[in-house]
Amino acid sequence: MLRFLITCLCLVWASSALADPSFKATSPDGKIMVEVGSSFGEATYQISRAGKPVITRSKMGFLFTNAPKFDRSLSAISHTTRSFDETWDLPWGEAKSIRNRFNELSVTFEDGRGAPRQFSVTFRIYDDGVGFRYNFPDQPNLKQVAISEEMTEFNLAEDGTAWWQPAGEWNRYEYLYNRTPIREVGQAHTPMTVRTKSGLHLSFHEAALVDYSSMWLRHAGGTRFISTLSPSSRGAKVVRTAPFSTPWRTIQISDDAAGLVTSHLILNLNEPNALGDVSWVKPYKYVGIWWEMHINKSTWGSGPKHGATTENAKRYIDFAAEHGFRGVLIEGWNTGWDGDWFGGETGFDFTTAYPDFDLKAVTDYAKSKGVHLVGHHETAANIANYEPQMEAAFALYERLGVDSVKTGYVADAGGARYRDANGHIVFEWHDGQEAVRHHLRVVETAARHKIAINAHEPIKDTGLRRTYPNWVSREGARGQEYNAWGNPENPPEHEVNLVFTRMLAGPMDFTPGIFAINPTQKGHRARTTIAKQLALYVTLYSPIQMAADLPEHYLANPRPFQFIKDVPVDWSETRALNGEVGDFVTIARKDRASDNWYLGALTDEHARRLRVPLTFLDAGRTYKAQIYRDGPKADWDKNPLDIVIEEKMVTRDQVLDIRLAPGGGQAIRFVAQ
Amino acid sequence: MLRFLITCLCLVWASSALADPSFKATSPDGKIMVEVGSSFGEATYQISRAGKPVITRSKMGFLFTNAPKFDRSLSAISHTTRSFDETWDLPWGEAKSIRNRFNELSVTFEDGRGAPRQFSVTFRIYDDGVGFRYNFPDQPNLKQVAISEEMTEFNLAEDGTAWWQPAGEWNRYEYLYNRTPIREVGQAHTPMTVRTKSGLHLSFHEAALVDYSSMWLRHAGGTRFISTLSPSSRGAKVVRTAPFSTPWRTIQISDDAAGLVTSHLILNLNEPNALGDVSWVKPYKYVGIWWEMHINKSTWGSGPKHGATTENAKRYIDFAAEHGFRGVLIEGWNTGWDGDWFGGETGFDFTTAYPDFDLKAVTDYAKSKGVHLVGHHETAANIANYEPQMEAAFALYERLGVDSVKTGYVADAGGARYRDANGHIVFEWHDGQEAVRHHLRVVETAARHKIAINAHEPIKDTGLRRTYPNWVSREGARGQEYNAWGNPENPPEHEVNLVFTRMLAGPMDFTPGIFAINPTQKGHRARTTIAKQLALYVTLYSPIQMAADLPEHYLANPRPFQFIKDVPVDWSETRALNGEVGDFVTIARKDRASDNWYLGALTDEHARRLRVPLTFLDAGRTYKAQIYRDGPKADWDKNPLDIVIEEKMVTRDQVLDIRLAPGGGQAIRFVAQ
Repeated sequence: MLRFLITCLCLVWASSALADPSFKATSPDGKIMVEVGSSFGEATYQISRAGKPVITRSKMGFLFTNAPKFDRSLSAISHTTRSFDETWDLPWGEAKSIRNRFNELSVTFEDGRGAPRQFSVTFRIYDDGVGFRYNFPDQPNLKQVAISEEMTEFNLAEDGTAWWQPAGEWNRYEYLYNRTPIREVGQAHTPMTVRTKSGLHLSFHEAALVDYSSMWLRHAGGTRFISTLSPSSRGAKVVRTAPFSTPWRTIQISDDAAGLVTSHLILNLNEPNALGDVSWVKPYKYVGIWWEMHINKSTWGSGPKHGATTENAKRYIDFAAEHGFRGVLIEGWNTGWDGDWFGGETGFDFTTAYPDFDLKAVTDYAKSKGVHLVGHHETAANIANYEPQMEAAFALYERLGVDSVKTGYVADAGGARYRDANGHIVFEWHDGQEAVRHHLRVVETAARHKIAINAHEPIKDTGLRRTYPNWVSREGARGQEYNAWGNPENPPEHEVNLVFTRMLAGPMDFTPGIFAINPTQKGHRARTTIAKQLALYVTLYSPIQMAADLPEHYLANPRPFQFIKDVPVDWSETRALNGEVGDFVTIARKDRASDNWYLGALTDEHARRLRVPLTFLDAGRTYKAQIYRDGPKADWDKNPLDIVIEEKMVTRDQVLDIRLAPGGGQAIRFVAQ
Repeated sequence: MLRFLITCLCLVWASSALADPSFKATSPDGKIMVEVGSSFGEATYQISRAGKPVITRSKMGFLFTNAPKFDRSLSAISHTTRSFDETWDLPWGEAKSIRNRFNELSVTFEDGRGAPRQFSVTFRIYDDGVGFRYNFPDQPNLKQVAISEEMTEFNLAEDGTAWWQPAGEWNRYEYLYNRTPIREVGQAHTPMTVRTKSGLHLSFHEAALVDYSSMWLRHAGGTRFISTLSPSSRGAKVVRTAPFSTPWRTIQISDDAAGLVTSHLILNLNEPNALGDVSWVKPYKYVGIWWEMHINKSTWGSGPKHGATTENAKRYIDFAAEHGFRGVLIEGWNTGWDGDWFGGETGFDFTTAYPDFDLKAVTDYAKSKGVHLVGHHETAANIANYEPQMEAAFALYERLGVDSVKTGYVADAGGARYRDANGHIVFEWHDGQEAVRHHLRVVETAARHKIAINAHEPIKDTGLRRTYPNWVSREGARGQEYNAWGNPENPPEHEVNLVFTRMLAGPMDFTPGIFAINPTQKGHRARTTIAKQLALYVTLYSPIQMAADLPEHYLANPRPFQFIKDVPVDWSETRALNGEVGDFVTIARKDRASDNWYLGALTDEHARRLRVPLTFLDAGRTYKAQIYRDGPKADWDKNPLDIVIEEKMVTRDQVLDIRLAPGGGQAIRFVAQ
């Protein structure tokens, strides 16, 4: 092998690089420092916090299918810096406004071999973490950019524990979260959460995933990770024309787990609202014809057990109207559900109803009751079948006053059907560039019809709700339905895991509120107490929240049901009061429409006692606390329905003693007096 | 999410599968058992040995770019078994003949969804391990097979230690071997070697890699691995027309490390010799104009320090003739070395010599001395430049009596240049389907010209030397040249690591025999004793072996040089006498051309004392043992040149006391009396 000569050549190529200063910038509070530069032809970055390394020297680069790679002939030829500070308002959200304050460092690298080519990397350094993205400028020697791999390294300075969801697997995002030493991670989806030995909490993710492939984190040995992009049937995982920028690679950094929950770094790195007036996007709570199919009481497909009948729809509408739910979701009303629809073998028709369902009659009936149908588009990830129908399908809903649609992409990884440029069906991953493009096409099409989107089996959330506020929620992890048939069901720690992993990406339509969890019932059930089901409405943020259980189960439990009726879905403020990843968490949120506060606390399989100072409450104010807590014998396994509902008057000077049963939770409504 | 329905459908689809018996077969000695079947629509296998699980239930399947995947709608519909036993001869090798005895189990799976499709899996169960491959039969519903991923799982039953080379990295196969817990492996090339906690030794690799992409092993968490194929610029990592079979996925199993060394499972799984009479393929030793470039004494490129001059060539030819070396390698004689050739930016001309080199005169001179020029084709992995010249380049060598060629593919991963169907340059990995095809085209073209191939920066070895006996050797790991300029150099454990990892794949042209290792010399040097350099000729098998150092360094050390002159390169028998992965090893081999035996022992950085019974020697025979051992003060760091050369008479009844210095070794020639 001839590496000797190569080494020599590299020394020549990189001679200017060797002399390069590295460029540095810090967060506004001076605590986080990023250093970017080149040496021996390699482009690298490193991150420290309070003088301690967080990410040690890590390479940045690309492989291309149509050009020599950006690898070891790079030198940093220029840099720019700037500072930024603004506060922006959310049309809906977990907060009313967010401060976006960062220092920025952009470094331009040049490939010195052959015809010169450049790219730059822009780092935005916040007090709560770092985001960076690559920019491919307009240039003569790199026009069509066909990326076979992005090779961004993340060399963690410290050992520790990681919570991660496997990527490149048979399924999508619907595995239980792994909790392993960092060194034992396989290949992970983002967000991946890490707690280092010294107690630092990190979340690795990306922001503003637009027209690019999702980034997976491949463990490369030791505490080193390399990005790997979700595959494409085309070869190049990303094909773009310069100029363009990649999504932001993000590392949120916090001293404690709670700090990750309230970081707005992902949203801040997204572009502002691109849709203008979005007053038509309404946060809401909903019920629907859904859980009854999961528990095999009815079917999506036609036949004697068909769930989506006009009659059944009206029953749900009546229930929604009576109990103050804006929305009624109806799945299975359109044809395509009979036969082997899973995996897209058969195609759905998005505008044709089964004979036993009269869409117009149902929407008219809903309107007369002040209720809104929540539309449904199950695609089975057969995008080739869905896209040609999309415009008509949304137009139909708009015509009937349906202003939000739940989409679905049930199919396993590598099973999404697209039509390629030649009209052939090609099979893609759920999170490659084609999928990313498709999901945004849906959101944009829906926006033209003033319709909000809640995607299930979606592309992961990277904060695009800031730019497209009609992208209100999504799934993207194991939801409640695994408690209907999962093998295993979601374990008691699952929802606490979600708070510190999946939820760091954005809102999730987890569909809480299952009350039929009596241990005497046969088969599957949720592994939570009933109080925990209530607490999920506060802890798992979404601007749309389902009351997922059957109406009759709520009617049989009117007192806990009252919390679901009371709890808002739009907030002016959020506080994470305590928490450890995967163990427990307490979150308080303030209603946007009143001065009321709400609190949710969750634990895993262990009983816990949390002392929670009420300092988040407004000063000088008294609140009636309506407390929904685990009863003295509550236990997810033996006694999940034991709940105590009580009221007391409190002020911010008090400290609450919160006792959580194994698999339990607590929900509190603080009514401002 | 709608998994409930899916689960139901799966139960229906797999109902026959649920009733399926699983199919079982054992190795000829009955010790290894393989069980193959389907349940819940998944195709799975498992392997046990002596009743203890080795590989627990592991899925098998494929993703396609042009068809629904083979995943969870599979049922095992039929099976066949057979037994096989033959003994075949090697034209050259580490043994004269090999017994190929196995029991075979083939199971056919059918995908029950949509238009029916089938594949089968054939398991060959040997006493020393298992190989299995997929077969895509001729069938109406799966003609053009475009594989986006092969998803073969390897779920190890036990924890343990792994020795592995990272895959999907910036470089090729030229990293130091990692030694980590199995759970801490990242993504690995094969062969990957594992020692389980109970002491079982496993080697994961593949056999007969033809017209397919190389398999990497991706750690997926815990002790679970999934295959991932080397990428392609086309999208589908493998494109084939049915019928075809994949390479064999192999798991060699042994109670001890030594057992892996002498397993012939990889060769046995390859097809027999396809070239007919290969008497023109000659094992040989060689010297060459090569090391002097690595130590910067001369250059590949033109100029005052040009190494490949007619005059210098004649000097090496004289040396080779005088000391009995058949070959003289000359690198840098053809044009293309000036400028930025690395990475294929410039193109080599394979038939045009630099003005200071007269190819005809050199080959004529060699012929007159009974010496053979070893040709050289450095491609810089610019296949688009090489392939159009290949025919003429081999024809030229054949005309001049050159019967072996060293090829080179210096370029980093993702940097090989090919021309696609539209004539555009595309960049490929070093081990994808295109590379696999290219390397075999070279070997077949060379065979037509009766030329043997020794590829550097090659595709990995999967035993194809059985089918193409002119594919005599290759590199494919860090070779000796890293001791000339590596940062770091090869550590003292490197060669012992190679014996139990890289060498399990097949012969390696490591280029041993560097004597200039005096610690007083400046800069880089080999981290071995001189006795260890000699021992490498026996321990690192190759039918061609270089005496890599400069002639003057051999002339200055005539006594150790004698071993290099004496040692054969073709063997009738090989025994691994002891060894622990990465720690030490002793190997004995019997000369094909005589009754003499040779022994090589290596240690890592630790001094060792090994007691070696000479029971491998022929019974009733006395041997003069010419022993080249580490001197009493030998140490790779402080005193690498301390060697004791002595003779004594021995028989098979004796036990040798082998003392190895830190970083040391021992070489012995047993001359039959």
